[in-house]
Amino acid sequence: MIRLSEVIKSVVEDILSQVKTQPPRYYIPKRGLKNTTFDETKQMLLMNGTKSERKINDITEIKAFMQTSLVLRSIYEAIVQNDHPSVRDLFYYTLHAVKYNITPFESQSESDAIIRDVEVMTGILREELGLVAEAKGSVTGKIVFESEGNYIDCSKMGIMPSMIPSLIDRLEIKSVKADKVLVVEKGAILERMNATKYWDKINAIIITGGGQPDRATRRLVRRLNEEWGLPVYVLTDSDPYGFYIYSVYKIGSISLAYESKRLACPSAKFLGLSVSDLYKYNIKNAVIKANETDIKRAQEMKSYPWFKDEYWQKELDLFLKKKEKAELEVLNKHGYKFMSDIYIPQKLKEVN
Amino acid sequence: MIRLSEVIKSVVEDILSQVKTQPPRYYIPKRGLKNTTFDETKQMLLMNGTKSERKINDITEIKAFMQTSLVLRSIYEAIVQNDHPSVRDLFYYTLHAVKYNITPFESQSESDAIIRDVEVMTGILREELGLVAEAKGSVTGKIVFESEGNYIDCSKMGIMPSMIPSLIDRLEIKSVKADKVLVVEKGAILERMNATKYWDKINAIIITGGGQPDRATRRLVRRLNEEWGLPVYVLTDSDPYGFYIYSVYKIGSISLAYESKRLACPSAKFLGLSVSDLYKYNIKNAVIKANETDIKRAQEMKSYPWFKDEYWQKELDLFLKKKEKAELEVLNKHGYKFMSDIYIPQKLKEVN
Repeated sequence: MIRLSEVIKSVVEDILSQVKTQPPRYYIPKRGLKNTTFDETKQMLLMNGTKSERKINDITEIKAFMQTSLVLRSIYEAIVQNDHPSVRDLFYYTLHAVKYNITPFESQSESDAIIRDVEVMTGILREELGLVAEAKGSVTGKIVFESEGNYIDCSKMGIMPSMIPSLIDRLEIKSVKADKVLVVEKGAILERMNATKYWDKINAIIITGGGQPDRATRRLVRRLNEEWGLPVYVLTDSDPYGFYIYSVYKIGSISLAYESKRLACPSAKFLGLSVSDLYKYNIKNAVIKANETDIKRAQEMKSYPWFKDEYWQKELDLFLKKKEKAELEVLNKHGYKFMSDIYIPQKLKEVN
Repeated sequence: MIRLSEVIKSVVEDILSQVKTQPPRYYIPKRGLKNTTFDETKQMLLMNGTKSERKINDITEIKAFMQTSLVLRSIYEAIVQNDHPSVRDLFYYTLHAVKYNITPFESQSESDAIIRDVEVMTGILREELGLVAEAKGSVTGKIVFESEGNYIDCSKMGIMPSMIPSLIDRLEIKSVKADKVLVVEKGAILERMNATKYWDKINAIIITGGGQPDRATRRLVRRLNEEWGLPVYVLTDSDPYGFYIYSVYKIGSISLAYESKRLACPSAKFLGLSVSDLYKYNIKNAVIKANETDIKRAQEMKSYPWFKDEYWQKELDLFLKKKEKAELEVLNKHGYKFMSDIYIPQKLKEVN
């Protein structure tokens, strides 16, 4: 937490300084679409490094300056008290921290934005600061974690999958006996694969983020790829939302571009369900008509640099032509074992 | 699975019968609001026992008759193949089961309804049939489960909470070292309580359903109450939706009234955040204005038999008068430790 103290100290020194060469200020890297670029070399979304100053002597910035100081102080007090508040807990705690009967934030979205500012300013992520969030991902397979002296072997939990806690980086990965990571979009699919011990059959660690993945799920996928050298394969519905989820695992997202270096996994491969799969595997009579949102999203995605390769342009064009989508579960149309015994093994060969 | 075979056998016998005294039919208990009553003695929502017949020789019923047979067959085939499909997998599998190029169900909601019919008709729940769903609940504290020969001690998982799998009844509870169950509405609160080992401090098993609880979470709460005699306390936001969630744990829900006997926990107690708490604990400056939906819901709840007691009528009246709600996290307004060290212990004394 040295960097946290340093930021606070530098502002306090500015305030106390006899010389008063400059007003107290925070230097905050700019977030948002404009300040995010797709790094072609690293193949991930990164911030471009532009910084802004948040000064105490500017009437338009004084509120944000105070809010930043308040969030810094609230985080610091949680650490001192050995507590692990969520960002919502923190939002309400600021009311306690100010003591006076004022409302420092109009709503939680305002304090959430300041928390993101604190992350980019200090270079310390909320998880490192001990802030928790609702866990939504889960993991199963031959992986052993160590947490506070306890060993958790995910292959010895029977039908109970393990949650991926928000503070995933406080867990050490002690051993991994698998040769790949299989990411599935939805929790029910992981539940099924766990109940049938599919991870053993295909020698994979199976992970789900339960739809759009949270930071912890992405971080675990990244660690398995980086620390353990496992290739990552992503299985989603055949629709633009599914393709987007795959891209979040792979290259990051705009809102969390400042975390890409820690979360993105550029070598991740798409295992399906692709648009062309719908016609190749004869599941035409079980497709769903695409809606306006799907079509608009696909049109936008066509222009994203990370969907510019031939494969994705063809897939998106086919989608826009046919205007049909399908859920991954559609593969059951060919029998209960089709996805596990035929589709996935075939696809694994294809993409490698 | 004897009851499942019996239902199928009886219909097949009707079809094959030389005597043909009656056309093949299914007897299906009626679900829905009309056929659900609040049982004052048992203090839970139960079905009233009215049955309907679904006959093969009635033109208005032949489709539903066929759909019922198809779902029965699809479930049976999953069991034979030792698989654990979700209800969505099953929906698509029916396309495989019919073989011909017809679409037996317009949408999944249609097949889901038939699955519920099969549950009430056979008296076998989907979990017993091995169907899985996305898990969303989690549990932490001194509880040891056994699953497929593995022991899972939730107090020895460090910061990793355990998911409550949909097939929770396949887990044996080997030991419980706690004197109560604390149910919290939201996952982030459980994450925090787990990171600070709060379960140890208050000697509780802590459970969350992540908002509206799924069947597995409710079943685990019920089992801890029934099999282990633990009192259950529910902690939610101070709004009609929070109160409703509490009532689902306690007396059940209309859509799952056929499961109340297995899921409801009538002795569960509400620990807050109550409407009067907002004024008693001086959190007036952090409340949120109630919206139309909140107000409409509160008005409806006033007439529910299970909210007819003096306590709830007063609470709902106060809500309708003040039109203010609050999130549980608002308690941080009095410091990080207020909820854990003051509010919960005080409330536990009050409600007992």
